[in-house]
Amino acid sequence: MTHPSVTVGLNTVWVVLTASMIFFMEGGFALLEAGFVRQKNQVSIIMKVLADLIFGALVYYLVGFGLMFGRDWLGSVGISGFALTGSLAHLPSTIPHPAFWLFQAAFAVAAVSIVSGSVAERMNFKAYILYIVAMAAVIYPISGHWVWGHNGWLGRLGMQDFAGSTVIHAMAGFACIAAATLVGPRIGKYDKNGKPLSFSPSNLPLAAVGTFVLWFGWFGFNAGSTLNAQDGAISSIAMNTLLASVAGGGSALLYSLFKTDKADLGATVNGVLAGLVAITAGCAYVAPWAAILIGAAAGALMIWATGWVENLRIDDPVGAIAVHGVNGVFGTLMVGVFASRGGVLFGGGWHLLGVQALGTVTVSVWGFGATWGALKLISWFVPLRVSAEDEERGLDISIHGTDIPHLEPGFLLSDDQLWERRRLMRLIAGMSAPPTDVKE
Amino acid sequence: MTHPSVTVGLNTVWVVLTASMIFFMEGGFALLEAGFVRQKNQVSIIMKVLADLIFGALVYYLVGFGLMFGRDWLGSVGISGFALTGSLAHLPSTIPHPAFWLFQAAFAVAAVSIVSGSVAERMNFKAYILYIVAMAAVIYPISGHWVWGHNGWLGRLGMQDFAGSTVIHAMAGFACIAAATLVGPRIGKYDKNGKPLSFSPSNLPLAAVGTFVLWFGWFGFNAGSTLNAQDGAISSIAMNTLLASVAGGGSALLYSLFKTDKADLGATVNGVLAGLVAITAGCAYVAPWAAILIGAAAGALMIWATGWVENLRIDDPVGAIAVHGVNGVFGTLMVGVFASRGGVLFGGGWHLLGVQALGTVTVSVWGFGATWGALKLISWFVPLRVSAEDEERGLDISIHGTDIPHLEPGFLLSDDQLWERRRLMRLIAGMSAPPTDVKE
Amino acid sequence: MTHPSVTVGLNTVWVVLTASMIFFMEGGFALLEAGFVRQKNQVSIIMKVLADLIFGALVYYLVGFGLMFGRDWLGSVGISGFALTGSLAHLPSTIPHPAFWLFQAAFAVAAVSIVSGSVAERMNFKAYILYIVAMAAVIYPISGHWVWGHNGWLGRLGMQDFAGSTVIHAMAGFACIAAATLVGPRIGKYDKNGKPLSFSPSNLPLAAVGTFVLWFGWFGFNAGSTLNAQDGAISSIAMNTLLASVAGGGSALLYSLFKTDKADLGATVNGVLAGLVAITAGCAYVAPWAAILIGAAAGALMIWATGWVENLRIDDPVGAIAVHGVNGVFGTLMVGVFASRGGVLFGGGWHLLGVQALGTVTVSVWGFGATWGALKLISWFVPLRVSAEDEERGLDISIHGTDIPHLEPGFLLSDDQLWERRRLMRLIAGMSAPPTDVKE
Repeated sequence: MTHPSVTVGLNTVWVVLTASMIFFMEGGFALLEAGFVRQKNQVSIIMKVLADLIFGALVYYLVGFGLMFGRDWLGSVGISGFALTGSLAHLPSTIPHPAFWLFQAAFAVAAVSIVSGSVAERMNFKAYILYIVAMAAVIYPISGHWVWGHNGWLGRLGMQDFAGSTVIHAMAGFACIAAATLVGPRIGKYDKNGKPLSFSPSNLPLAAVGTFVLWFGWFGFNAGSTLNAQDGAISSIAMNTLLASVAGGGSALLYSLFKTDKADLGATVNGVLAGLVAITAGCAYVAPWAAILIGAAAGALMIWATGWVENLRIDDPVGAIAVHGVNGVFGTLMVGVFASRGGVLFGGGWHLLGVQALGTVTVSVWGFGATWGALKLISWFVPLRVSAEDEERGLDISIHGTDIPHLEPGFLLSDDQLWERRRLMRLIAGMSAPPTDVKE
Repeated sequence: MTHPSVTVGLNTVWVVLTASMIFFMEGGFALLEAGFVRQKNQVSIIMKVLADLIFGALVYYLVGFGLMFGRDWLGSVGISGFALTGSLAHLPSTIPHPAFWLFQAAFAVAAVSIVSGSVAERMNFKAYILYIVAMAAVIYPISGHWVWGHNGWLGRLGMQDFAGSTVIHAMAGFACIAAATLVGPRIGKYDKNGKPLSFSPSNLPLAAVGTFVLWFGWFGFNAGSTLNAQDGAISSIAMNTLLASVAGGGSALLYSLFKTDKADLGATVNGVLAGLVAITAGCAYVAPWAAILIGAAAGALMIWATGWVENLRIDDPVGAIAVHGVNGVFGTLMVGVFASRGGVLFGGGWHLLGVQALGTVTVSVWGFGATWGALKLISWFVPLRVSAEDEERGLDISIHGTDIPHLEPGFLLSDDQLWERRRLMRLIAGMSAPPTDVKE
Repeated sequence: MTHPSVTVGLNTVWVVLTASMIFFMEGGFALLEAGFVRQKNQVSIIMKVLADLIFGALVYYLVGFGLMFGRDWLGSVGISGFALTGSLAHLPSTIPHPAFWLFQAAFAVAAVSIVSGSVAERMNFKAYILYIVAMAAVIYPISGHWVWGHNGWLGRLGMQDFAGSTVIHAMAGFACIAAATLVGPRIGKYDKNGKPLSFSPSNLPLAAVGTFVLWFGWFGFNAGSTLNAQDGAISSIAMNTLLASVAGGGSALLYSLFKTDKADLGATVNGVLAGLVAITAGCAYVAPWAAILIGAAAGALMIWATGWVENLRIDDPVGAIAVHGVNGVFGTLMVGVFASRGGVLFGGGWHLLGVQALGTVTVSVWGFGATWGALKLISWFVPLRVSAEDEERGLDISIHGTDIPHLEPGFLLSDDQLWERRRLMRLIAGMSAPPTDVKE
């Protein structure tokens, strides 16, 4: 057994513990999404997230890590480090290589999981597994190399994305646009006039469990990105992460409260997540007051963007595009504005903002385009979408073979039958008013 | 990037990780309370806890922290450190200021969240938001300054409250008495003769999730309060925390088992929490056997106190007064009895016990009085309580605009009856095929 | 307050944090099992796990720890350290004794909890409490001493079980065989021809929450077992733990997908857990590729073993025998094959494999036999099983006195309407007695 120095030991436990927190975030994604989708698809979305972790981690070990963090080739891609073999001398020396891999694998899996939400309730599971392979083995690692890799061209230009507002969130958020578009909207999401209808979440308390798990993990996500326990920025990173998240949740909560006189839980939790996404790039570079401003703006931006996406007839069941895509770009740009070193407001001029804009746009376009190509390719082998009948019955039963006690009393009812049943029960309950989202 | 010493780096990751665990406890509060209230109010209580974190952290940053940990003025209040600015040289030097703030913010938010349970199912959300501001900005910080602040008068007297049995739990628990009284009991809680009726919990498994999350976070709550990874007491603090919690859960479980011949889950989880609250003051000062005694007594005390509260016609839906208020006071007093240094049983005489009594009574009275005043003030601007109609319909729908798919059946049916019912529903649903696992 | 060295401080926070993660795994066990059993028994299984923690930790403090880690007597048992008193100079010096105890207590509680699943839905709660005492005070500590204790005979032979594939999982998994056999199958599990019928899980999302919590905790379980933050193996242990878990989940997922064309959630989560159990012995000794092979084999083995157990007419509701017993043995043997030092494939010859086989068989037989004896003894005082009527009604109501609102439609009913509806449903359900808390 080697016996590393106290410093290496300290850094190692810091990175292993924060990596564990980030892997735990997969539970957060699964439950948040399960709570937001309809009950007949809860198991299917949880299975997609389990598959993200299972297949994502395996292919990132075999292929992705090498492309992202291997020795650089023309600033575009890494060419060593597959299965942690070959030349890795350029990796950070603060921690052993397996700890570095573990932390990066947690990031790769998070990127894939963001996409799962945007194809929920209708994507074919086998096609999704193939997409996980493409994303974790190739798509995410290549753009990741540009920003974080050894001599990546965006990194060399001076792009600053501390924990991945662009590398993870914007890239995956724009991948969601391609995926949701190619898979198409859920049956009944848009009426004959193209007017969007809302499907109400099946289990908001479950979604809340997911949110708290994601929130907890995000401290590891941002502060752990120092990869070094002696990095003087750790405490302000953690403080900025908290301040931005509560500012995002606050602006979204107050927005829904004053606009509709209802304090909406869905808006609030997505506001918290939007604030977290937006501060991820700048958490190590901006002042606390800037973190609050960035977070508050992110919360409102998420609400507007959710409307834009819906009107574009892109069906994104859990709001991944608005939360991760739009706010990933926004947060990356804000580094160019608020960074204490190089930000526009701090006399840094426009250079950094320009680099940030170039970087986040390039990576977002890559995420969109590469996902579009990958899914087109996959569609030659397996259909991207389940059959209409399977979709009506729900993917839990049709694809995952669940018998459905946890769907009581939704059962095998089609949505129309479900609405009819709920209408009757409301009458039984002596209520006249139909639910706000009833179809007919 | 500054490069702190190994010691500061170690302390920083210790405090950031434990602070993250304490923030995660908000998820525990939310789910515990959601599980205990009726289904029609699950979302509303989760929203209250989200608001605790959102608005509590913001105002504690702007105002509360300064009042609590700023430079002392007459032993009564702090007058620097607002938004972490101004004179802070008196703060502990083991960790950077932002880490210290983060940890203290997690404590402040926990204090507010304790009150959310006692006003569940009927308090007006807007009034509650205003109360959060009063609590996190002023009420908690002022009494907190007395005990933990720089030159606070109770701290100077020698009061010992290691992680906040009084500063957080007793203060908030007595605030619950004022809040629950002013808001009044839920409709139907007391019959015409004033006899209390029980509303059964809506989701005990959800309450159990919350309990395990709180339990996990409490290790960070107590051991993290050292703010110093080289504090020799860390391991005994963690051991005492576990021993007191299991002793509390054990005494409450056995009490319910032998008294009613039913092993009650609600009593058990509140017993665990009571043990945790009671050991919070003394975890660093008492021996393991004392931790077991204190925890076991706390579990029984919680059960008796729950009865007292109910008979006083104070409607406390989740038992916050019995768990946090009564056991916060009890745990603080037990330090005066069992502390290895200064405890009555260890030849310390009555001085420490006297100081503990003075401190916990003063802070509890403050928590009650200041909350009473704040809510009276708030009631001039917004009603403290929702309308009777909104309460009957449930706050989830009337205040938070949820449709209700997360409320689904299952009942008292035996399996055979359940199968029969499902068979019928499948017919209703126009399906012939019986479920694969049907019995007959 | 003593002031330990930076090294001891670092090791202490490492062990306290990972121990907290392992205690949090109790929440994982509770929710995983609650999700897999029928709704009428969800509270009962959660209560069993709460009791594991409550009574398990107490008796392990008083008795078990001494038998396991006390000064050795003839290689067979420890004879000091009861309540952490007496001679403990032989314990690891990297951390204070209370931290070592805390970590070991978390392991002991995990061992007991494994058994809870195999007796779910029909074991008498009082008898189960007595079994917890036997397991945590005597059964687990004695075989644990053989492998991990000071001079234990299997440890002296050179058995390598890094984090407990045998000490915890195989021992407890074979205890499950004895317990499930003595308690007998659930009513209706086998039809008149002895053909097993499946009871479908009541809440797969809840089971998923449990899985993610267990997965998170397992990083602490394996990596924390170093008890030393400067152990150079920490990062490869964590990496191997992840790789084996995803390989196990992957093989089980693909197996179910290609065999039945359904991607089964139950199989996937048990595959993940099987991979984790199997790598627990070797995580510090094998290469990453070996961890992947071991995990993948464990996933498939779990599926086959689940069939074997069912055909043996042993009713194991959550698959504890296949996950923990079979894969605990398998993982221990694989150390003898893949260990870089001493493994068959690395020129170590057959010695280590022989020792591993001797150790895992001996400990498994002990777990089975001691549990059989303990339950026989307990059955003289309290029945091991609830009455058929109580079983049909569900243990939640009959043993834990729950009213059933967690199985209850809340809908838009006012309370009065809700009471009326419940009164009717009780009649439908053929029950005369009104609920204890009915209003009229």
